[in-house]
Amino acid sequence: MRYKERLNKLTTLLQLNGLQAMIIWDNYDLLYFTGVNGPGALIVDTNGETRLYVPPINYEAAERYAFPGLNIEQTRIAEPLEVVVAHSILGFDGAIAVDRMDVEIYKRLANMAPNIEIRPSMSLIWEIRSVKDSQEIGIIHEACRISDRAMLAASDVLCPGITENEVKSEIVSEIYRQMGEKPAFEVIVASADRSSLPHGPLQKADKRDRVINNGDVVVIDLGVMVEGYCSDITRTFIIGKPKDNEFEAIYSSVLNAKDAAQSFMRSGVSCSYVDSVARSILSEKELDKHFIHGLGHGVGLEIHEPPRLAPNSPDQLMEGNVVTCEPGVYFEGLWGVRIEDTVLITDKGVEQLTNYPVDQYIVY
Amino acid sequence: MRYKERLNKLTTLLQLNGLQAMIIWDNYDLLYFTGVNGPGALIVDTNGETRLYVPPINYEAAERYAFPGLNIEQTRIAEPLEVVVAHSILGFDGAIAVDRMDVEIYKRLANMAPNIEIRPSMSLIWEIRSVKDSQEIGIIHEACRISDRAMLAASDVLCPGITENEVKSEIVSEIYRQMGEKPAFEVIVASADRSSLPHGPLQKADKRDRVINNGDVVVIDLGVMVEGYCSDITRTFIIGKPKDNEFEAIYSSVLNAKDAAQSFMRSGVSCSYVDSVARSILSEKELDKHFIHGLGHGVGLEIHEPPRLAPNSPDQLMEGNVVTCEPGVYFEGLWGVRIEDTVLITDKGVEQLTNYPVDQYIVY
Repeated sequence: MRYKERLNKLTTLLQLNGLQAMIIWDNYDLLYFTGVNGPGALIVDTNGETRLYVPPINYEAAERYAFPGLNIEQTRIAEPLEVVVAHSILGFDGAIAVDRMDVEIYKRLANMAPNIEIRPSMSLIWEIRSVKDSQEIGIIHEACRISDRAMLAASDVLCPGITENEVKSEIVSEIYRQMGEKPAFEVIVASADRSSLPHGPLQKADKRDRVINNGDVVVIDLGVMVEGYCSDITRTFIIGKPKDNEFEAIYSSVLNAKDAAQSFMRSGVSCSYVDSVARSILSEKELDKHFIHGLGHGVGLEIHEPPRLAPNSPDQLMEGNVVTCEPGVYFEGLWGVRIEDTVLITDKGVEQLTNYPVDQYIVY
Repeated sequence: MRYKERLNKLTTLLQLNGLQAMIIWDNYDLLYFTGVNGPGALIVDTNGETRLYVPPINYEAAERYAFPGLNIEQTRIAEPLEVVVAHSILGFDGAIAVDRMDVEIYKRLANMAPNIEIRPSMSLIWEIRSVKDSQEIGIIHEACRISDRAMLAASDVLCPGITENEVKSEIVSEIYRQMGEKPAFEVIVASADRSSLPHGPLQKADKRDRVINNGDVVVIDLGVMVEGYCSDITRTFIIGKPKDNEFEAIYSSVLNAKDAAQSFMRSGVSCSYVDSVARSILSEKELDKHFIHGLGHGVGLEIHEPPRLAPNSPDQLMEGNVVTCEPGVYFEGLWGVRIEDTVLITDKGVEQLTNYPVDQYIVY
């Protein structure tokens, strides 16, 4: 990874914003700028060196995975990292940025360094992280390839009588078989009235698993992590003949909404506009009121990143963004349909990175 | 769950601390007090009602899973929750607590309600959450039972020639078969020199899987989630005859350290003392410098919670705490041993909740 290029970009942004340094506290940001998973804290000094503080539990991993030449300092066991950070910034006299930090830790840190302005500045990091370079795109491509395979493995076993957990097992096993690092998030296999809950339901004691039956709608939402990067795909299946005659028409509407929204995506287009395209297609069939979430989100080291494709989003698509396009309609207590792909934004449009077929949704 | 009892305790603590209300922003806390997974925000008013704000994507789930009688209000799609919260607290005139919140959102919220002191007060929540009631203990018991079964499934397939990912697949499948909700965290199967990294390593492109060979040490760290609650267990295996003659002696030392530390655990004992017991046993063989992390942590809705068993920890064990006891020694670049169980703290000592045998660590 181009860690030094990333740090150079960050240094430039800090200088442009009158910031002398930045505390990188969040684990994803730490990984992005150093190659090291947390716990740890990175101090990026525009006038000096970059230094990574890690506790002993993470020191060997830091030595193995940090980019060559990074200064790494080991803290003591159970020493609070904010104390270490406070000491390291005491000599500064300008404003210092911080990425993400719980307010309580922030207040402790600010109290230990009372003469220094510590300014939350996550937007600077997103400016860099939301645009993927060719190496990141290659990795996300691979994560998407594996997620297509995992969806295929799921559809291969889907049949009346199988349980949701059995389908999940197949998906996770296929992810490991295909050399995925792990699922990017807990796999959702939501059948029948569970499919009307976009994130899948809580698993109450009496319903920790469920048999999938003929006529059930099944929403499968899965992602794969490869070298820290995520993919995200959702497909909706129907087992045999749908109980609801409307199913096929509604499936088509959701697919049309997705296709239309995607056809408007390219660098320079506003995210709220793309969201509104999907919403207006669904409104033709009065389905827009059942589309109860935003159209999509950025995907990278985190499964939900900027840009945010939603009503009122201030974000604009840029070349190198990787985002999801995932319209869905949900009928409370009954069933739902969501179709989602991960796409790369280019200057001409999109390149779709997940490609499991959308027309093979009937399973016998 | 005893949601109303929990809210009553919280209300009492708020009143004792001169706080008029609390904003519950964190998703785990939200689940603990309402039964609803996030996204959402809960306002607990000591003088009035408790109200849950959820975005449309989460409204149906909130209606299904909230305790009966909870006021639930739906926000608009993509409306920032902090704006909703700011409106809802504008009428207050006393100090208001908040659990956990990113500093940037906190600052936005504080700006929208400039006359109100919003005080980070997570310690009040931990006071309640760290003591588990009988219902929670029953669920964690079940999560621990499943984690023992998952460890058995792993040991059943462990043999020279199997890969780390194949072992992970078996573990995850067994968790689903046993009606676990999901793995409580990404399963760690770390063989050979990977076992010297307590959290398992990053998975670089060329090493996303690895064949386990004769003579390898394999550290397996897994947890299971049941109804939101976690378990945590680690076992270290050796495939056939160890390459390092010291292995068995060191395994024994780690086990002795664990047994000794556990024998001192009971309500009223300080966490740093229990940590020091394990450290002193390991120091007899000069292994303490290889014990590069704290002895353990609380387990509940989160896999890492207070109390923290570590040097300098200010925490004290209390009846009803569920914690891990997990000494480990790590030889940089070579191998490591960690043995971990989840235990319940009682007034007399501990009840060990994970019970996979510690003496069946040789696998052929």
